[in-house]
Parts: sequence; structure tokens; C-alpha cells
Amino acid sequence: MSVTRRRTVITLLTDYGVVDEFVGVLHGVIAGICPDAAVIDLSHGVPPQDIRAGAAVLVHSLPYMPVGVHVAVVDPTVGSDRRAVALRLADGRILVGPDNGLLWPAAVAGGGVEQAVEISASPWRLEPVSATFHGRDIFAPVAARLASGDSLDMAGEAFNPDQLVQLEAPRASTEHGVVLAPVIGVDGFGNVQLGAVHEDIESIGLGLGDRIELTLESGETRVGTYALTFSDVSGGELLLFEDSTMQLALAVNRGRAADHLGVRAGDRLRISVCREL
Amino acid sequence: MSVTRRRTVITLLTDYGVVDEFVGVLHGVIAGICPDAAVIDLSHGVPPQDIRAGAAVLVHSLPYMPVGVHVAVVDPTVGSDRRAVALRLADGRILVGPDNGLLWPAAVAGGGVEQAVEISASPWRLEPVSATFHGRDIFAPVAARLASGDSLDMAGEAFNPDQLVQLEAPRASTEHGVVLAPVIGVDGFGNVQLGAVHEDIESIGLGLGDRIELTLESGETRVGTYALTFSDVSGGELLLFEDSTMQLALAVNRGRAADHLGVRAGDRLRISVCREL
Amino acid sequence: MSVTRRRTVITLLTDYGVVDEFVGVLHGVIAGICPDAAVIDLSHGVPPQDIRAGAAVLVHSLPYMPVGVHVAVVDPTVGSDRRAVALRLADGRILVGPDNGLLWPAAVAGGGVEQAVEISASPWRLEPVSATFHGRDIFAPVAARLASGDSLDMAGEAFNPDQLVQLEAPRASTEHGVVLAPVIGVDGFGNVQLGAVHEDIESIGLGLGDRIELTLESGETRVGTYALTFSDVSGGELLLFEDSTMQLALAVNRGRAADHLGVRAGDRLRISVCREL
Repeated sequence: MSVTRRRTVITLLTDYGVVDEFVGVLHGVIAGICPDAAVIDLSHGVPPQDIRAGAAVLVHSLPYMPVGVHVAVVDPTVGSDRRAVALRLADGRILVGPDNGLLWPAAVAGGGVEQAVEISASPWRLEPVSATFHGRDIFAPVAARLASGDSLDMAGEAFNPDQLVQLEAPRASTEHGVVLAPVIGVDGFGNVQLGAVHEDIESIGLGLGDRIELTLESGETRVGTYALTFSDVSGGELLLFEDSTMQLALAVNRGRAADHLGVRAGDRLRISVCREL
Repeated sequence: MSVTRRRTVITLLTDYGVVDEFVGVLHGVIAGICPDAAVIDLSHGVPPQDIRAGAAVLVHSLPYMPVGVHVAVVDPTVGSDRRAVALRLADGRILVGPDNGLLWPAAVAGGGVEQAVEISASPWRLEPVSATFHGRDIFAPVAARLASGDSLDMAGEAFNPDQLVQLEAPRASTEHGVVLAPVIGVDGFGNVQLGAVHEDIESIGLGLGDRIELTLESGETRVGTYALTFSDVSGGELLLFEDSTMQLALAVNRGRAADHLGVRAGDRLRISVCREL
Repeated sequence: MSVTRRRTVITLLTDYGVVDEFVGVLHGVIAGICPDAAVIDLSHGVPPQDIRAGAAVLVHSLPYMPVGVHVAVVDPTVGSDRRAVALRLADGRILVGPDNGLLWPAAVAGGGVEQAVEISASPWRLEPVSATFHGRDIFAPVAARLASGDSLDMAGEAFNPDQLVQLEAPRASTEHGVVLAPVIGVDGFGNVQLGAVHEDIESIGLGLGDRIELTLESGETRVGTYALTFSDVSGGELLLFEDSTMQLALAVNRGRAADHLGVRAGDRLRISVCREL
């Protein structure tokens, strides 16, 4: 009887973009070390060097990935003395990447870090290690060795997980019946992702179908509807909705909300009950 | 003796773009259900919410794909009461996507629909089903179950294929020696795809090597050549040619025709014999 | 006992972009012929029709790819009488693509061409061969047949490798203490890749940590540091560094050097010792 070992999944999340060959080189390095790995490109479109945005994508996407080795690289201080790390989580996942907060929210969501290893000087890295492309020289080869079954113990030097850089995601606050919500990002459809959840909106008395008033940073206001999906409002109209990551977002049916509103990551918006007659 | 089952192919065509993690999440969901599927990204660059453009890519590309499960998602009315469907074609392919016309030309080209199943409430969907990301919650898991060998009968509720939303591709017409051709799209090289074929041009007396006159929507005219390939004309010159999907297209040798001409999807162009001396 | 044959790697490098379905069609054609191949997308973001840029990516990336069949398509004269070729290198790799110089630097780096075969009329091509999409009709099917173990002898007509089109990469020159360096390209982070190496800079007396003066084509000058990595200079400051391909490049820490400097591929920059007080 022949027993087939299930292929280990490696996921890749970076800010490398899809124009250059950086992502292809990661795949080549992995294929050379662990040809049986199933490699999934989670995304390479994180805004360059935006650690917060990358951390948000990672934490929201991992629940849909098979348990495996999960590489994330958004690394503005590559080549400095920031740690390169591999972390085993309570839920069995292994995270690999720079220790700059990028991995933190996903580590918390995965039940916390059970084992932390510094891999900056890993015996598995590719020599010579470049100063600027640790994805190729450290993170990919370490991930591939782990995927091929080598022990995390051997990947580098153990350290206390309490020393990991932590990252707190920006979150909405509520006062005097107004939700003050940070803009986390804008997706490819122009939808505006907010650092807020249904409970925030509910706490100021809003429910599905209600009209909302949105105040932009400029002080201008817009009116929309708290709806379930795009087609619940007319074409060109604004809606607030719970997106597929269970966070609130703004959209315009058949339009691009970010362009209509002129907002971008880092803005803070105010949401309140609409007072219109 | 060990018998290896051939990996089932799943192809993915969407308007999700390659910046966000949406495509990566589809891959993760599929890998979790059917790790042995061979997943091919046909394209994720369909212009957002452009059902006609997506339908054209699907029908022109499927002949080059192995027979398998073919997911297509361009879905501006996601979350409304439009059907989510899985269709078995006469040629053995299974199409999975929204019933908004997107799948129709490919279904016709595949010999018609032999079995139609509504999967909106499929037992295989991921709960809770989001209102806006049915690719993740319905189409990907249903495709993965079908690829792993589960029966289409079990995917949802059978319905009469005659009820499917139909989509007619815009096609050229000919009158008084002029071909009136719709612009279907513009590719990454700036080439302009027309809803016309060689026979249209032939019917007004044009053959390979002949000079053509092109009239833009503005009424301006341009002169070019009906040629086999780019290098048949000088750098910077306009050509009309039969592209790799057997449709006519406009190009500029070593240039971007769409920019030179200032045309875009939806324009209607007039092509006639060139009267120049 | 069951013996598993290692999957042959096929790498793909093109200027097709990731918006259209061209890349997906290559994957489909390959999957139909050699479903067991492991296909790696090296990059599809080569600037359209830029043979030099494609050649540079290929030669710098192949060392990180497993030995396999390596397809490269940047092909402005597709459909003309330029040769389509498959080349076996001394290092065991097989290159497949147009004979326009694109493959040349990689062939030299791979120890030279041991066997050259013209595949324009290969028995393995897809009929009818289009005039404009030889990736689909010639290069992908030939690569897939080679990956599935068919002999290069059978791919087409042997010819003398001395007849291959050669391509010389633009290289820096040095005179009177100034390095005159061509700009090869700009990556997705805005880093500016130069056709120069550490030895060029060393020859005018510069070492790590030294201040440099950069003279743009306009005659304007900028001051920076010859450093190991981005974080060795302050945010917003210019650095010259050895990039991950061992070529010199210009960057701005946490910025986009190409935008700051207003340079692009083809420019020639002058680098000298900084005379500032």
C-alpha cells in the first residue's frame, strides 16, 4: 500500500508587488528546497512598507488558509538589527517574517506564540545573505525547510516570545453618539475598510437599513445607508456594510467609494445617525 | 501497483485584481478542501464588474484549458437574489459562478448546458456566508468539492437551464461597404479588441495587405493596413489584424493603439477601404 | 515500492502583464500537455517589448531557480522571421523563447549553449499557429513536451549556436574619477538599478560609508551615501548600495528614488566622490 503524505502549505504575503521578479524568486528558492510544498500567494499587493496594512491582511486571511508555514514580509528596516523570526502558534501554524509587529495580530489570533526562534543567522539561510532581500535569503529557505519537516528547534536561536514587537491595530472609539473610525485601507474596488465593527455602530443606535451621516476629515458630510450588500442601495449611492472580514467598510454601489469620498488610509471618519428629514 | 489519479484542474477568472488578498483566499479555501486540485489563475484582471469583458475572456480561453471545473466571478449584484450556479456542459466542463450572463457564451461554446444546479444555498458553502464575497463562501468551496469528485447532484437544487440569464456579445454589422465594429476591450499592450472577424472585413472587399480607413467616434479618420502581424508595418504605424482569439484587433507596431487612437471599450468604429491616393 | 519522479520545473518570464489572460492561457496549455510540471511565474512584469530588461531579469534570477525548462517571451518581432528557439546549456538548463538577444546573457551565464534547436515549425506547436501569440502556440507546448521528458532533438531543426543573436548589457565606464553608469530599470519600490558593480565604485576610491555625488542627465547634482542597506541612512536620504543581484542601485530610505531623482531606464548618471565640506 502506498501512503501519500499531504503536501505542506506555504503561504506568502509581501509588499513586493507583481511587477518585479521578487515573488518568482521566492517560489524558485522554495521549489529547490521543498519541491512538494503547495505554495499559495496570499497577496503581494500590501502597500510598500505598510506594516499595519500587512498585519491586517494576515490576521484576516489566515483563517481561510490550511494550517502550514506562513511567510509575511513587509520589512522597511531589512538589514538593520531587527530580528528575523519563526514562531509556532498554539493553533499549529508557523509564522515566518521580520519581527516588526507584522506577525503580531496573527500570532494573537492563533492563540499566542508557543515557540519563538530568531532566524537572522539561521543555518538554513542562503549565503551570502544580501542586505536587502531577506525574503530570498532567510525567510523563504527557512520556510521551505520547515515545510519539508525539519524541526523549528534547528532553525536558529530560541528566545522569549515576550520580547516580540507588538502592534496594536487602530480601533474605532465612540463618544456622544458618534463613532470615530480610522480608515485602514482601500481595496481594489475602491471600498474603504474601517477599523470598526458592527457593535460600534449598534452602540450608537444604528441598525441595518438605517440612514447614516458620514463626516470626512475636511468637515464635509455625506449621507448613506447601513446595508447588507451593494445592491441594497441604488447605483452611485453610499453604503456602510460589514465586509467579508467582519469589519465595517464604506462602498458605493457600482462605484469607487474611496474616489467619491476622497479618503485614504490613516484618515479618521465620523459616523452618526442621519438627521436629514 | 499504485495508480495515480490525475489532478483535477480548477481555473479561476475574476475581477478581483491582484492587489488585494481575495485571490489568495480562494486558493486557501480550495487547498483546504481539495489539496490535490491543480489551480490555474486564468485572469483576475477583468475590468471591475464588467460582465461582458469577463464573458469574452472565458469563452476565448477555455479551449486552452484542460477539462475541469471553471470558476468565474464578475458579480456586481452579489448578495441580491441573482442565482449562484454550477453548470455541466456537453463537453464535460463544469462552470461555477453567478448567473448574470458571465457564463453564457462559454456554456454555448461548450455545447450547451446538460445539468444546471443552483448553489446559493449549497450544503458545501462556508458558513456564515458573507453578503459580498461569494467567491470565498460559495463558488470556491463548491468548485473544490466538485474537483474532489463529489457529485454535481449534491451541490444544490437542480433547475431548468432554459432559465439561465443569456448574454449576447456585441457584434459588428456591415452596410454600404463599411464595417461598424464595437470595441470589446483593450489589452495590456494597448491593442484594441473588436467585436468583428475576418469574414466581416472580407465582405467589404478587404484582404491581407490592403490599406484600411478607420473612422473614430469623433469623426476623425486614421489610415492603416490589414496585416498578419505587428512587424508587417513600420514602427508607429496602425494595423488591423486577426488576433490570437480569431477576432479582429487594432494595434500600432511598437506602440499602444488605444492611446494613439483614444478609443475605449464601448466605442463603435467604422472600417472601410482606404480611398487615399 | 512506488518511486515518485520529481516534478520538472518550468519557469515563465514574459512582458504579458497580469491584467490579461495571456499568462493563464500559458498555464492551461502546459497543464494539458504536462500536468505534473511545477510551473513558476518568474515575472510577467517586464516592461512591454523591453528585451534588455527581460534579459537582465532572466540572468539574475535563474541561479535561484531549480534546473528545468525556462521559458522567456519578450518578443516585439513575433510573427516575423526571427527564430523561435530551444537551447540546452552546459549547466543542464533548457531555455525556450525568441532568438532576439533575450536569452543570450542567461545562456552565457549557464556555461554556453550545447545544443540549439529552431522550433518555429516544431511538430509540437499548436495548430493553427497565430501570428501574435507564440507563447501559447509554440513556446508553452514545446516547454511542456520537454518537461514531460521528450527529447530536445525532436523539438525542431538543429542549428549552430554561433548564429544566435547576441546581446551586450549596458555597462558602466570610468574616467577621471567618475563612474558613468547606465540606468537599467526601476523596481516596484522605486529603486534605480544601475549597470555597475562594486568594483567600479571602488576603482574611483569609494568605500562603504563614503559620501557620493550623483550627477543627473540634467546636470543637477545630489548627495548621498554608499551604504549597505536602506536603514543605514535617515528617512528621505539617498543611498547607493549593492542590491540583491550584486549590481549597484540607488534608493531613498522609506521613499521612491526614481521619483525623487526623476530618472528612468536609459538615463546615464555620473557618480563621483562627494566634494562637500
